[in-house]
Amino acid sequence: MAGLLFHFDGVDGVGKSTQIGAFCQWLRDAGHDVVACRDPGSTALGERVRSLLLDKQDVPIHRRSEMLLYMAARAQMVEEVIRPALEAGRTVVADRFLLANVVYQGHAGGLDVETLWQVGAIATAGLQPTLTLLLDMDVDRALGRLDRGHDRMESQGVDFLRRVRDGFLAEAARDPQRIAIINADQPVEQVQADIRHAAARVLKGAPT
Amino acid sequence: MAGLLFHFDGVDGVGKSTQIGAFCQWLRDAGHDVVACRDPGSTALGERVRSLLLDKQDVPIHRRSEMLLYMAARAQMVEEVIRPALEAGRTVVADRFLLANVVYQGHAGGLDVETLWQVGAIATAGLQPTLTLLLDMDVDRALGRLDRGHDRMESQGVDFLRRVRDGFLAEAARDPQRIAIINADQPVEQVQADIRHAAARVLKGAPT
Repeated sequence: MAGLLFHFDGVDGVGKSTQIGAFCQWLRDAGHDVVACRDPGSTALGERVRSLLLDKQDVPIHRRSEMLLYMAARAQMVEEVIRPALEAGRTVVADRFLLANVVYQGHAGGLDVETLWQVGAIATAGLQPTLTLLLDMDVDRALGRLDRGHDRMESQGVDFLRRVRDGFLAEAARDPQRIAIINADQPVEQVQADIRHAAARVLKGAPT
Repeated sequence: MAGLLFHFDGVDGVGKSTQIGAFCQWLRDAGHDVVACRDPGSTALGERVRSLLLDKQDVPIHRRSEMLLYMAARAQMVEEVIRPALEAGRTVVADRFLLANVVYQGHAGGLDVETLWQVGAIATAGLQPTLTLLLDMDVDRALGRLDRGHDRMESQGVDFLRRVRDGFLAEAARDPQRIAIINADQPVEQVQADIRHAAARVLKGAPT
């Protein structure tokens, strides 16, 4: 496929939204036709699944069922949004993707990691990001930066988030070509500079 | 697990609901504590996923995404309804189960059949019916018996339903110990008698 798929991930509080916004703008300024999406979401089905997942208080959801709902939303996003965009030569920037599922539900949540990759390969029909930008930061530092009540973070617990961070780092160690670790505990501009530097490797030679 | 899981399946129009009702009553009369469920459904999450799946006109759903939604609903039903019932020694009667997904989306729908079994094994954590009662009938005969507008049947097309029937029969041939083919093109009482005869094999010696 002609287009590039950039994927941003990391624990809540590392500054993902800010960095994604600046990166998309930089890509647009360089002439890219950018499509931003979030996983789960970005399709009618995905947004309905997303609200199901966030309504967990009202509707009990077993962790395997939750995993399969994430996968269903992702399958729809791949077919409806990402694949057509890539085929049209556009540049896709995804806020979370399969890796988040593997880390949150596998490494941290206790589901089998290899199983998650297998189901994920089926859900995405094998589509992988061109490059994953993993925004990394000490979990306590990330927690301290969160200014939105900490509800989701605190409900999951700091130990859980440490396992999430460790899971992200373990996956990055397994696939260093595809997953770039970005030190997110720096001034916003420096983090963005590091992201652009990492992205330059795959942008070089790609059509803009 | 102490309990038994009976699973009924077959093309729409073969008389599944009638036969399930009579079979459940027969089990209750014999002293079984019966739990009836339908797949997808039977849990709060499952019913919400079910309405998502039936709302397809409003919300586009890719076939891989659809498959994963069925799997998510099934995972929840297994954990919330079937497994606790079996562990309590109850007798579960399921209207459709994983096999229907394999046949409708795999054999008839074009998804890879082995992949469906693999994802299904993950969704159900390996739980399989003690016995599947496959109600079988010529598709044109089944169509003729349907008295509810034929909407779903006709929208899928007779060719699709022929592939469904062939898929059910192919799976029964692969696993004759677990899947009993019941000739559904007989008087209701005779079909029920054949079902009870097939069920007797697994009921013999089981606690009632």
